Amino acid sequence: MKFHTRKWVKPEDLNPNGTLFGGRLLAWIDEEAALYASIQLENQKIVTKYMSEIDFISSANQGDIIEIGMEPVKFGKTSLILSCEVRNKMTRETIITISNIVMVNLGPDGKAKPHGKTQVEYVKDRL
Amino acid sequence: MKFHTRKWVKPEDLNPNGTLFGGRLLAWIDEEAALYASIQLENQKIVTKYMSEIDFISSANQGDIIEIGMEPVKFGKTSLILSCEVRNKMTRETIITISNIVMVNLGPDGKAKPHGKTQVEYVKDRL
Amino acid sequence: MKFHTRKWVKPEDLNPNGTLFGGRLLAWIDEEAALYASIQLENQKIVTKYMSEIDFISSANQGDIIEIGMEPVKFGKTSLILSCEVRNKMTRETIITISNIVMVNLGPDGKAKPHGKTQVEYVKDRL
Amino acid sequence: MKFHTRKWVKPEDLNPNGTLFGGRLLAWIDEEAALYASIQLENQKIVTKYMSEIDFISSANQGDIIEIGMEPVKFGKTSLILSCEVRNKMTRETIITISNIVMVNLGPDGKAKPHGKTQVEYVKDRL
Amino acid sequence: MKFHTRKWVKPEDLNPNGTLFGGRLLAWIDEEAALYASIQLENQKIVTKYMSEIDFISSANQGDIIEIGMEPVKFGKTSLILSCEVRNKMTRETIITISNIVMVNLGPDGKAKPHGKTQVEYVKDRL
Amino acid sequence: MKFHTRKWVKPEDLNPNGTLFGGRLLAWIDEEAALYASIQLENQKIVTKYMSEIDFISSANQGDIIEIGMEPVKFGKTSLILSCEVRNKMTRETIITISNIVMVNLGPDGKAKPHGKTQVEYVKDRL
Repeated sequence: MKFHTRKWVKPEDLNPNGTLFGGRLLAWIDEEAALYASIQLENQKIVTKYMSEIDFISSANQGDIIEIGMEPVKFGKTSLILSCEVRNKMTRETIITISNIVMVNLGPDGKAKPHGKTQVEYVKDRL
Repeated sequence: MKFHTRKWVKPEDLNPNGTLFGGRLLAWIDEEAALYASIQLENQKIVTKYMSEIDFISSANQGDIIEIGMEPVKFGKTSLILSCEVRNKMTRETIITISNIVMVNLGPDGKAKPHGKTQVEYVKDRL
Repeated sequence: MKFHTRKWVKPEDLNPNGTLFGGRLLAWIDEEAALYASIQLENQKIVTKYMSEIDFISSANQGDIIEIGMEPVKFGKTSLILSCEVRNKMTRETIITISNIVMVNLGPDGKAKPHGKTQVEYVKDRL
Repeated sequence: MKFHTRKWVKPEDLNPNGTLFGGRLLAWIDEEAALYASIQLENQKIVTKYMSEIDFISSANQGDIIEIGMEPVKFGKTSLILSCEVRNKMTRETIITISNIVMVNLGPDGKAKPHGKTQVEYVKDRL
Repeated sequence: MKFHTRKWVKPEDLNPNGTLFGGRLLAWIDEEAALYASIQLENQKIVTKYMSEIDFISSANQGDIIEIGMEPVKFGKTSLILSCEVRNKMTRETIITISNIVMVNLGPDGKAKPHGKTQVEYVKDRL
Repeated sequence: MKFHTRKWVKPEDLNPNGTLFGGRLLAWIDEEAALYASIQLENQKIVTKYMSEIDFISSANQGDIIEIGMEPVKFGKTSLILSCEVRNKMTRETIITISNIVMVNLGPDGKAKPHGKTQVEYVKDRL
């Protein structure tokens, strides 16, 4: 699994108990899944269709740095299924895991559209 | 299921495709689950421990009004399990469903603590 | 008065004194008034035209849960006048009251337009 | 009346109709009133106690620049009463007016405390 | 140099160390430069092209009030060069200085366009 | 240079012209510099002290994915100097470059403190 995006936990990211607000974390994951799929499928019109069960294994505190990892599980005809892990950058302790996030490739009409991709590609090889 | 909190979908809530950003929706749900559990368990120290699979059934557009419903599934010893549905207020079309959201009651030491509750209570009956 | 929307006071909602920022509260109220009027008038093009005097009766702290209540005062020809109370969900202590919030129904041209409504309707009866 | 703070209306400030969200504007005004009072009363612990009726005279659009004016109406024993006007910077068209905003000076215990001020002072004269 | 816009440092503006987040400050400066140029050049289509070196001289804390000053350095053919200082409103201590911020005037096609201005103008003289 | 953090340009990130707001981009860069330095210096108390001149080479649009690259230029006694480039993930077009960002390592007293580091380290080698 590749870990790219990192976040610095600031006061604006906390719940009233002073730990990382779970909803903020879910929003970060959803954005990372969407942009990962957008890069792989070479399409800006991508939506989240499904997430499998989410385990909140540990939390994070103000000042912690977390990193978000994504990995393709399967290239469907109109979808891309991703696996996700978020962990503490310094301790590598797992914060959250999601086995399957189904992202769907949309056409200009907003309907699911085949993307023609079957494996991970690197942007540098496309250019 | 009782639907309380409502949101008006504003430009700041949109993804780049111009529909409701899924991450924003997940953040709204997590906040609603936390405050629902906080009210029932009479404790401000509540954390999200687990969410079962999430179906993004339909989306919402700028200007739509959505409402978030929560319902207790089970009162555990230190937890409260909730079921959630988000729907369009005007059309009642379902946007998302989550069967099980496990919220955990924490003590002052940040560890799970029995809450002693076994059923839904209404604030008006407590006062 | 019906109380629907609830908010959990998070660090991002605080003023520098560590209590709920009054401006944030006013923004929440304005959104609730707009969506309440939008539901009643079955129109997404609604604007706030006037608010009568606002009493900040008590404040709220981090971790508090507040609920926002709205009630129709009068259905005008192109307007809907609402009354608002915000209170602490757990203690029912009043935080703020506003007797009259005038919401105006707009046509596609952005001008005031008769809405034809004379009383509260429930969405379930429309469907 | 002195107009200091200016805002550039960005997409994140819009309501679903594409004009300036009234709640955002009220939050901007409340912040300006609080900091104006904080400067005059030389105290960081200031709260909003009351606002007289608010007229939303005109709106603002994306890209507009607005400016917020504040003027003392009366120095009370523990309070400062302000008058406010928000206008479009380029056209000087009035957007909103509020005749009386009552800001209260708090002591370390969070209770109203005499501030000893009776007139406008300029920071440059204090230094 | 004229100091107009003021900000009240709230919890949402802090970095994890509890002082004003530098990125937030830079965002405030960029907005102020853009709206200052927009006022002077009478054009809403303005972009930031360049900033000279930035000295973070001192920081600010929760509850501080800061003010942002802008001054024209030079009117170019399609640009306006500004100088900026941010300081603590109460102590006048300098927080940040930037000698040159180059703002560019764009035409409807998004390309640099001569603005025809050669000196500071006041809105009141234009009306 | 290593590119880690990625951002998806959403409506909330736009200036009134509909392109990526420069201030938002600067805030993202400042956060990335702070967390990069925090990881390298193994200290959460890090502040931005200086940025060399900033060239806004191209812009980004709604839906674009950008990535932020950081590279150490020099390990000082109490500082770490970084170089930064932000580019469009899909086209690799450069959006912004900053040659020197000086981050300072603070002790518990908030004053500059030697960090004892002389070269890039990888978290995996520390664990």
